[in-house]
Amino acid sequence: MRNFEFHNPTKIIFGEDRVKDIGKEAKQYGKKCLMVYGKSSIKKNGVYDTVVKSLNEAGIAFVEYPGVKSNPILSHVQGGVDLAKKEEVDFILAVGGGSVVDESKAIAAGAMMERSIWDFLLGDTEVGEALPLLDILTIPATGTEMNPTFVVTNDQTNEKVGRGSDLLFPKVSILDPTVTVTIPADYTAYSIVDAISHLIEGYFTGEDSWTPIQDGYVENLVKTIIECAERILKDPRDYQGRATFMWAAALAWNGLGPSGIGGWGVPMHLIEHPLSGIYDIAHGAGLSITIPAWLTWKAEKDSSKIAQFGRNVFGIEEKDQNTAAKKGIEVLRSWFDRIGSPTSFAKVGIPESDSEKITDMAYKLAETWGMHKEYTRDVIVELYKLCV
Amino acid sequence: MRNFEFHNPTKIIFGEDRVKDIGKEAKQYGKKCLMVYGKSSIKKNGVYDTVVKSLNEAGIAFVEYPGVKSNPILSHVQGGVDLAKKEEVDFILAVGGGSVVDESKAIAAGAMMERSIWDFLLGDTEVGEALPLLDILTIPATGTEMNPTFVVTNDQTNEKVGRGSDLLFPKVSILDPTVTVTIPADYTAYSIVDAISHLIEGYFTGEDSWTPIQDGYVENLVKTIIECAERILKDPRDYQGRATFMWAAALAWNGLGPSGIGGWGVPMHLIEHPLSGIYDIAHGAGLSITIPAWLTWKAEKDSSKIAQFGRNVFGIEEKDQNTAAKKGIEVLRSWFDRIGSPTSFAKVGIPESDSEKITDMAYKLAETWGMHKEYTRDVIVELYKLCV
Repeated sequence: MRNFEFHNPTKIIFGEDRVKDIGKEAKQYGKKCLMVYGKSSIKKNGVYDTVVKSLNEAGIAFVEYPGVKSNPILSHVQGGVDLAKKEEVDFILAVGGGSVVDESKAIAAGAMMERSIWDFLLGDTEVGEALPLLDILTIPATGTEMNPTFVVTNDQTNEKVGRGSDLLFPKVSILDPTVTVTIPADYTAYSIVDAISHLIEGYFTGEDSWTPIQDGYVENLVKTIIECAERILKDPRDYQGRATFMWAAALAWNGLGPSGIGGWGVPMHLIEHPLSGIYDIAHGAGLSITIPAWLTWKAEKDSSKIAQFGRNVFGIEEKDQNTAAKKGIEVLRSWFDRIGSPTSFAKVGIPESDSEKITDMAYKLAETWGMHKEYTRDVIVELYKLCV
Repeated sequence: MRNFEFHNPTKIIFGEDRVKDIGKEAKQYGKKCLMVYGKSSIKKNGVYDTVVKSLNEAGIAFVEYPGVKSNPILSHVQGGVDLAKKEEVDFILAVGGGSVVDESKAIAAGAMMERSIWDFLLGDTEVGEALPLLDILTIPATGTEMNPTFVVTNDQTNEKVGRGSDLLFPKVSILDPTVTVTIPADYTAYSIVDAISHLIEGYFTGEDSWTPIQDGYVENLVKTIIECAERILKDPRDYQGRATFMWAAALAWNGLGPSGIGGWGVPMHLIEHPLSGIYDIAHGAGLSITIPAWLTWKAEKDSSKIAQFGRNVFGIEEKDQNTAAKKGIEVLRSWFDRIGSPTSFAKVGIPESDSEKITDMAYKLAETWGMHKEYTRDVIVELYKLCV
């Protein structure tokens, strides 16, 4: 166990019929908010009406800011920052999936900054204060509802960068699984891959060697997510499967998993970001390509933890460590195929000829994240070869 | 998954050499504190000196209030409340084990109340506001460092009652495992039993039937605690064993385990409280008597979850559910014996003739906690028979 700090002050309100409580919860944060959302889905599933009614009943005025893209872009963030400043809102209310919450974090910080939020994302400045952020999550996947990080793509350069500030934990996140039962099969699959990726980044890269709390936490959540996925595949309206996945996705990236494991990295995210940044594929779809690729690369160097994963998550019984690891990767890849998340460049139409462009972008991100000593250009090229 | 709310705003600072950061962390809560502690152990292990130096450097004045007992008593709480009011302190700083933190919570609330904290414990009034509480934990066991509950014994009546208020989450808890390596073997064992008890109360009594997140969370932590115990038994100064146990004990009672399991109870605590209340034995020592007793009683009615526990925690392979459950209880009881925590009234010298007195007290507590419909006098008598 290494030294760590853990502080996650987000209040989670979880369950059926809880969206209507947003007004009551939000009252203490002010009288006027910017309501950020994406497209029309929250109007179709009734969430929009419930939120508006609840805000009205609580006497909270709101300015609407729709149009968040599924990979939030900087120009739209800037529009929200300008509107939040102009309207002098007291807080931000995000209603939507991870992208909407992420963009809302960027707006909450940007509204209190003189410099651009992009400067913060590049590490050139810090967030000094931020507007309070509340959210109603409609798509579980990214874990943003219970952490202080967010990702934005610069639509001028296609760079996709993520960062966090302790000031950006949502004050309140409302998670109502009933609104998730209509998420289509493909996006459900991408969400599942995303949540799994959050669990395994630290698991496979942590520097401490004996971390039973954290290992068991991760293995249990991955196993549970797989169980949920099977229930949802069978019946997309299965409340228990949807609800359990929704909570698992929040727990997957709330800081608890990696607490005490020492330094760790996010290599699978590193090489994914250029994919969803350039090609506008879902982040989870990119991850189901990069996860098996990175694991294959890693297993060549040290297969011990991958073998442990295969044994404890998939029940692989091979005694030989390398064989168990290899089998674990195979099972995971074919499970991604089974749930309908792509596992190669070919499956999403990324041409091999783009490799150089993608490598440049990943290497630049490695520099931003301070990972470039391990993830050199050569290593990144090698990793992308395993994605083809 | 049932509806729930989860909100745990305590900041955890974990690791070697972190006690010295208390001044820096405390500064934002004021300039004068009441420093609550027990006996001389914090002076022997150097924690007292480190705290004093850190407070001085941060310019924080402090009034000392030592003498907390290992089951905190109401009269001493009242002394602390009076002193906190008289000295007009800004916050409370607890330095010690679970009892010191618990008493500090009672003082933090009592200092802002007109009525007695005992009225709150009996459910006759609520906490409206409380002084901020920070703590430096020296004995991991109760989980009080990451939750809002506390237990006090009324030294007039020997009643031991616990309750919580969301205002009583510690603002900051510093957990430095190095200060725990000198905890003697018996108290280490009682602490281990206590942490396990916190995990299994919800596990065995939750109303939802499919709770893989929560079940796996509990099973993993119990397994990990057992692994830690074995390391500590072998080498009491084993840092990794001590540190991992310290974090596990906090996670055992921080609200995460039972989130989403629906209603649940604390029957093993219910029947323990009179034991440590009357006989001044350690709470954990009482629990290693009541846990196997309650499980034996429960297995007669429904052995399914106990069998699951036996299989997943102890690797019991019996196919028959009742046999697996029975074996699981036996393994747990003999493991308590092995680590030196008592498993019967006889072992701690509680005479069978006291049964009526103990039953009266447990039943009264069942009424206070609203558990008396299931835990009638007859049931309690039956349970204590299994403790003899």
